[in-house]
Amino acid sequence: MKMLINVPETVVADALRGLAAAHPDLTVNVENRVIVRRDAPVSGQVGLVSGGGSGHEPLHGGFVGPGMLSAACPGEVFTSPVPDQMLRAAAAVDSGAGVLFIVKNYTGDVLNFDMAAEMAEDEGIQIAKVLVNDDVAVTDSLYTAGRRGTGATLFVEKIAGAAAAEGMPLERVETIARQVNENSRSFGIALSACSTPAKGSPTFDLPPGELELGIGIHGEPGRERRAMMTSGEIAEAAVEAVVEDLQPRNPVLVLVNGMGATPLLELYGFNAEVHRVLAQRGVPVARVLVGNYVTSLDMAGASLTLCQVDEELLRLYDAPVKTPGLRWGV
Amino acid sequence: MKMLINVPETVVADALRGLAAAHPDLTVNVENRVIVRRDAPVSGQVGLVSGGGSGHEPLHGGFVGPGMLSAACPGEVFTSPVPDQMLRAAAAVDSGAGVLFIVKNYTGDVLNFDMAAEMAEDEGIQIAKVLVNDDVAVTDSLYTAGRRGTGATLFVEKIAGAAAAEGMPLERVETIARQVNENSRSFGIALSACSTPAKGSPTFDLPPGELELGIGIHGEPGRERRAMMTSGEIAEAAVEAVVEDLQPRNPVLVLVNGMGATPLLELYGFNAEVHRVLAQRGVPVARVLVGNYVTSLDMAGASLTLCQVDEELLRLYDAPVKTPGLRWGV
Repeated sequence: MKMLINVPETVVADALRGLAAAHPDLTVNVENRVIVRRDAPVSGQVGLVSGGGSGHEPLHGGFVGPGMLSAACPGEVFTSPVPDQMLRAAAAVDSGAGVLFIVKNYTGDVLNFDMAAEMAEDEGIQIAKVLVNDDVAVTDSLYTAGRRGTGATLFVEKIAGAAAAEGMPLERVETIARQVNENSRSFGIALSACSTPAKGSPTFDLPPGELELGIGIHGEPGRERRAMMTSGEIAEAAVEAVVEDLQPRNPVLVLVNGMGATPLLELYGFNAEVHRVLAQRGVPVARVLVGNYVTSLDMAGASLTLCQVDEELLRLYDAPVKTPGLRWGV
Repeated sequence: MKMLINVPETVVADALRGLAAAHPDLTVNVENRVIVRRDAPVSGQVGLVSGGGSGHEPLHGGFVGPGMLSAACPGEVFTSPVPDQMLRAAAAVDSGAGVLFIVKNYTGDVLNFDMAAEMAEDEGIQIAKVLVNDDVAVTDSLYTAGRRGTGATLFVEKIAGAAAAEGMPLERVETIARQVNENSRSFGIALSACSTPAKGSPTFDLPPGELELGIGIHGEPGRERRAMMTSGEIAEAAVEAVVEDLQPRNPVLVLVNGMGATPLLELYGFNAEVHRVLAQRGVPVARVLVGNYVTSLDMAGASLTLCQVDEELLRLYDAPVKTPGLRWGV
């Protein structure tokens, strides 16, 4: 698999240099791998820190900025960042109001954020944590005990980020972040595997004429392989999986997310089918995002995330945000 | 090649239905294939209309909204829209201040926009046209006499859109659009071919271990095939091609654009190399955009566009814009 890289060993560092060159609002520590909003710490505001393996961009580094994350810690591709990164990020963004760690549910991430939380508290930084585990496809997976954290991470970071920007205290920001996660469900499908720079070839084998339902964002196995389906059939499977589990009664935020290599033309077509099925099931839609937000390198495919919102969560979702990957209102 | 579609025949209509579902600020005429900002025509403002083959999303439909295009006309995949679409768009956005057609230099687009301009003028709509032809790679190509129009289209639409939003008269908006094009140059590279839904397989053959320098946004042949190069070497080739032709003396806007299937992680790494080479050549950078903006379905690769700006063009570039694909300040 050909890649637009120098050598596999420098992929993350090269990307961080490029992020710094593109976004003067961010402070990028390339050596220590921490991305911080330039004006951090913001007086009186809770700091939000997330992180995880690289290869899911714009998640997380592209979501750093006013109204969303205060800092992000990128690991190697598909590999957890280390506690030192998280500690450094927490120290950089803590204004004294405390820091919320937003952790996708993968075993390495969970362990390392736990360790970082202990280290930070030893240094006098108050830490709260929220675990994102929205993927309904499977329980227990290649890197995860329990459900995986995927597309809902965007909604948790956006909505909790708005709560922090309003000056809400740590306990309240944590409660809201947990509320977003509990009201979110995701389901992904893959048409092709992705290739990591280190391996240089597809990470799993998906034969011509087949797709995988319930794929993880690292290509972890899903629920089943099927003969290729139409966009409408895939939307029916994805909406059913998510809605049966979530049982939404309020309006939902919809994220139709590309895994990386699927053209926007196809994602919008898929969005049409998702809306058709949601309407059939009587699920009201509050807001829609279509694009590549929580990706898996060059995987072809898509995921659907629904997040049920009340008036407060919707207001916080609509609040201004200014990051490389998500921006409105400023 | 597996695709997230229903059938090839409905790909564009399906995407337009999905665009309408996601973006209530747009009026999408699915049957007649015209995307119009909902508040058009805007009193006292010049209307901006562009269009072209589908498959380059977010260009053009994703750039419709306040501060950018008033309307867009999507053709079939990689196929020019027809004059009736352009006429309908012009009629929908003309407030009496006239309409600027922004036309990428492909033979079909040029002929059809010319015909639409005549038809519109017959109906009393004042029309001006600007041709975008920024691609330095080749003169005359598969679909083009002269240079192809590629990444600079984004800058033309953004900056002319801001000029129109300020209430500048048609002649002035046209002059500014032309000035942006004359000060812009692009160069693209492909690591893989793209597959159109109709064909269902790659549109050209690019062997393992080779890349194509100077590729067009439909996979038209470029300058040469080469053995695979590093990101740094590719940046050197792209910057040299663009800078030698443009000879910039003022600061430049930089667009590091993904062709569709190249991960953002790689695009940011490429951006780092582009900045390294620009710094070596003493080219000052005013603003940077990194992402998938002018794509070629699922092609892997990237393009570089530089646009030399004076104070007025930079001010117009920075002005607020609110579209699905580009948004800031609102």
